[in-house]
Amino acid sequence: MVSDEARWLSLQRSPGERLADAAERMIREAIRGGALRPGVRLPSSRRLAAQLGVSRGVITEAYEQLAAQGYLVSRVKAAPVVGDTPRSMLRPAPRREELGRVRFDFTPTTPDVSQFPVRQWAACLAAAARSMPVSEYDYGDPRGTRKLREVLAGHLGRTRGVVADPEQILVVHGTAQGIDLLMRTLVTGGARCVGVEDPSLPSQFERITAHGLAARPMPVDAAGILIDDPDVDAVLVTPAHQFPTGVVLAGERRRTLLNWARRAGGLVLEDDYDAEFRYDRQPVRALQGLDPGHVAYLGTTSKTLAPALRLGWLVLPAEHMPRAQRIRNLLDVCPPSVEQRALAMMIERGDYDRHVRRARKEYRRRREQLIAALADRLPDLRIEGIAAGMHLLMRLPAGLDDATVAARALRRGVRVAPLSRFSHTGNARGGLVLGYGRIPERDLEAAVAALVTAIRR
Amino acid sequence: MVSDEARWLSLQRSPGERLADAAERMIREAIRGGALRPGVRLPSSRRLAAQLGVSRGVITEAYEQLAAQGYLVSRVKAAPVVGDTPRSMLRPAPRREELGRVRFDFTPTTPDVSQFPVRQWAACLAAAARSMPVSEYDYGDPRGTRKLREVLAGHLGRTRGVVADPEQILVVHGTAQGIDLLMRTLVTGGARCVGVEDPSLPSQFERITAHGLAARPMPVDAAGILIDDPDVDAVLVTPAHQFPTGVVLAGERRRTLLNWARRAGGLVLEDDYDAEFRYDRQPVRALQGLDPGHVAYLGTTSKTLAPALRLGWLVLPAEHMPRAQRIRNLLDVCPPSVEQRALAMMIERGDYDRHVRRARKEYRRRREQLIAALADRLPDLRIEGIAAGMHLLMRLPAGLDDATVAARALRRGVRVAPLSRFSHTGNARGGLVLGYGRIPERDLEAAVAALVTAIRR
Repeated sequence: MVSDEARWLSLQRSPGERLADAAERMIREAIRGGALRPGVRLPSSRRLAAQLGVSRGVITEAYEQLAAQGYLVSRVKAAPVVGDTPRSMLRPAPRREELGRVRFDFTPTTPDVSQFPVRQWAACLAAAARSMPVSEYDYGDPRGTRKLREVLAGHLGRTRGVVADPEQILVVHGTAQGIDLLMRTLVTGGARCVGVEDPSLPSQFERITAHGLAARPMPVDAAGILIDDPDVDAVLVTPAHQFPTGVVLAGERRRTLLNWARRAGGLVLEDDYDAEFRYDRQPVRALQGLDPGHVAYLGTTSKTLAPALRLGWLVLPAEHMPRAQRIRNLLDVCPPSVEQRALAMMIERGDYDRHVRRARKEYRRRREQLIAALADRLPDLRIEGIAAGMHLLMRLPAGLDDATVAARALRRGVRVAPLSRFSHTGNARGGLVLGYGRIPERDLEAAVAALVTAIRR
Repeated sequence: MVSDEARWLSLQRSPGERLADAAERMIREAIRGGALRPGVRLPSSRRLAAQLGVSRGVITEAYEQLAAQGYLVSRVKAAPVVGDTPRSMLRPAPRREELGRVRFDFTPTTPDVSQFPVRQWAACLAAAARSMPVSEYDYGDPRGTRKLREVLAGHLGRTRGVVADPEQILVVHGTAQGIDLLMRTLVTGGARCVGVEDPSLPSQFERITAHGLAARPMPVDAAGILIDDPDVDAVLVTPAHQFPTGVVLAGERRRTLLNWARRAGGLVLEDDYDAEFRYDRQPVRALQGLDPGHVAYLGTTSKTLAPALRLGWLVLPAEHMPRAQRIRNLLDVCPPSVEQRALAMMIERGDYDRHVRRARKEYRRRREQLIAALADRLPDLRIEGIAAGMHLLMRLPAGLDDATVAARALRRGVRVAPLSRFSHTGNARGGLVLGYGRIPERDLEAAVAALVTAIRR
C-alpha cells in the first residue's frame, strides 16, 4: 500500500489542547474507527504537516506517540504504516460450508478452468488495451463494440447457424445477465408469464420471477420440452443439450416450439450454453437460425473459455432491440471495451476455435471414462442424454432418494447434484447429475468408487 | 476469420438431385439466409466432405459453382471465403445524430480518456491474467474477489475516510450497476420511495423508477440537498460535489441528513463519483465514514481511470449485505476476476494514486483556463459550485432559456448540456453545465469563443 494524502483528515483542536496531541488523537480515531486500516501507509510527516497547516515537528511527535502505543509501525526513512490491531486479527469467515471436505466435485455447469488458455488470453488483453483507440476508453454503445458484434455475427453464423445482424447483438456479462436483461425487456413489453423447462437451473427460475413474471414449469421428456401451456409470453429452453437431463430437442418438437411462437406471437429464449461440445455427431443447428424473428439467442464464454471472463452475447429480433438497449444502459451502461476487443482478437486469430477443439477432445475422453467406470461398478446403470457437454444424468435404482444419496456422498467427500434439485414441480427426481468439468481424468476412477460406495450404502 | 467446422450444416437431398447440387444449395441457403456472413472462411473441401459423408469431389464442385456465382471467393491452396453480397453492402447506421458536426464537446460526467494510463493498465491486466490462481477463472464470490475488497477497504479508508470492512464491499460494473443493485436490494427490503436531488442525472432517476420505486425530487440550494420529505426510504446524494450544481453539502446539512437516516431508519446513498478531484482545498470526508450503519457508499473508476473499465464499488451496512449478495448473483453472478486483480495491483503499486494526482493537476489547469476564458468574454458571468471535478455550472443572464442556448450552440458545433435537462421538476434552469473532460487545454479558448457567440446571439 503506497502513500497518498488521506486528504480528508482534518485537525480539530480542543480548547487548551496541544497541536501534537490533537494530531495524535485525530489519527488514532481514524484508526480505531476503521477508516485507516492495518497495513495502510500514512502520508509523510512533511506532507501531512503541509496539509494541516502545522509544523512538521507536530506530526513527527504524533507519529512517535502512536508508534509507542502500537497504532503505527515506524519505518526508517519512510512514512509509518498502520499496525495490526485486535480488530484486524479477526479471521475472515470460512468461504463455503463444506469446501474443505470435498475430495471429488461432480458439480455440473462448470468447465475445467485449468484448461483455460491463460497465455493467449493475457496476450490478447494486453494487445487489446495497447492497440485500442483512445475514444474506446470512454462510455460506449450499450450493445457492445461494433467490432466484437461483427466478429460474433460471423462466428455464430459459421459455428451455430445463427442468423445475426451485428445491429441485433448485445454483448453481456454471461448468460445470467442475458436472461436478466431479457426478463426486464419482456416485462416492459407487457409480458407476464415465461415457460421454463422442468427440470432446469433454479437460478434461471429465480431470474424470471425476480422481475415479477410468473414462471410456468413445462415437462421435459426424452424428446425435450413439451409446450403444455400456449398461454405464456416466452419459453426459456436449452434445445441443443437440455440441462440437466442432457436430451436434445427432437425435430418435431423444434417445429412445434417455433409454430407456437409464430401463432402466439411468443418468443423462444434459446440458451445455447454448451452446444460447442457435442461428441458423437454434428450438433443440431441453433433454433434461432430457423426463425430469427421469433427466437432470442443466448451464448456465453463461460463453458468454452472460463466463467470468470463474464462475457456472453444475446441475439434479439429487431423489434425488441430498442427496449433491450435502453435497459442494458440502465443495467450498467455498456460492457467493458478492452475485454471485448480481446475476445474479438481471440476469435479472429483462431485461438478460440482451437481451444474449443482441444477442450472438446478432453471432455469427450472424460465422459467416456466416467461412463466406463460407472458401468464397471453399476452394471444396471442407466445414463440419459446425448454425448455432449460436461455433464450426464445417471438414473438411480428405484426406491433410492437422490437427495439422500447426494447428502451421503457429500459426507464421503463427493459433491454431486441430485436431479430433484433442478425440479420446480417435484416431478423430476431419482437421478444424479454428474459434471466432469472439475474432475481430471486421473481422479475419475477414485471419484466413481467413492460415489458408488455412497449409492450402495 | 479462421476455419471452423460449420458443423451445423446438414445435407438434404431432394429426390433425383445430384449430391453436388444439394451441397451447393445447402451452402447458398446458409449464405443467403445470413448465417454464413461475408468474410467467413468455409471448412476445407476435405473437412466438409468428411463431415457430410460425401466424396471430396462433391464439395469441390459445389465450391466452384458458388465461386462462379459470386457467393464464394476461391483462394489458392486455401478454403474459400464467403464473398460480399448486396446484403453486406448496406452501410452500418450512423453512430450518433450529430457527432460529425460537434467541434467542441462540453459534455459533463466524462473524463479525458486520453489521460488514461494505457501502458500501466495493459501491464496490470497481463500480469493479473498470468499470475492468477487457476481456481479464480471459475465462478467467484458475488461480492468480488477477497483480494480486491481488502485493497479497496484500505484505499477508501485512506483516501476518503470510508470505514469499510471487506465483508461489506461489493465490486460492481460502475456506479450505474451499483445504483441498479441498490434499488433492487431496497425493493426486496420493502422500500417504496427514494429521494433524489433536483437537479441530478436523469439516468439516476430512471434507475430508481425502473424497479417500481417512486423517485421523490428534493431541491438543492447553495448548501446542498434539502430533505423536505422525511417519509422516503432512502436518499441518493452527491455530497462531495453535487452533480450538476457543483455545490458541496454543507456541514449542517450533512448532520441533518444523517439525523434523518437515524431517526427514520432510512438509508443515505452516497454517490462519491468524483471526490478525488478537489482543487482548492482538502475534500470533505465521505459521509459514510461518519455513520457507516446508515450510509451506502458508491465509488467508481469511471472518472479516475476510464469509463470503459466498468469497475466500481459499493460499501453497504451489514444488514443489507445478504440481500445485496443474492441480487448481485442474479444480476450477473460475479464480477470478472482478471480485471479485479489488475485493479488491486494498480492500487497497490501506487499507479492509481499517481495517475489521480497527475489528472488532478490537468483538470485543475483546465478549469482555471476555462473560467478565465469565460470571464474574459462574459464579465457578468456567474460560475457556481466548488473548484472540483470535471464540470462547472455557468448561470445564464436572466431571460435566456438554457435549452434554446444549448440547441443554438449545437448548431455551431458546440455540445453543451442545459441545466434544465437535469431538473425533474422544471425548477432548476437557466444554466449551462460545462464539462472539461473532452476539451484539451489548447482548444479551450476556441471552444469558449464559439459558445459565447451562441449565448450572445
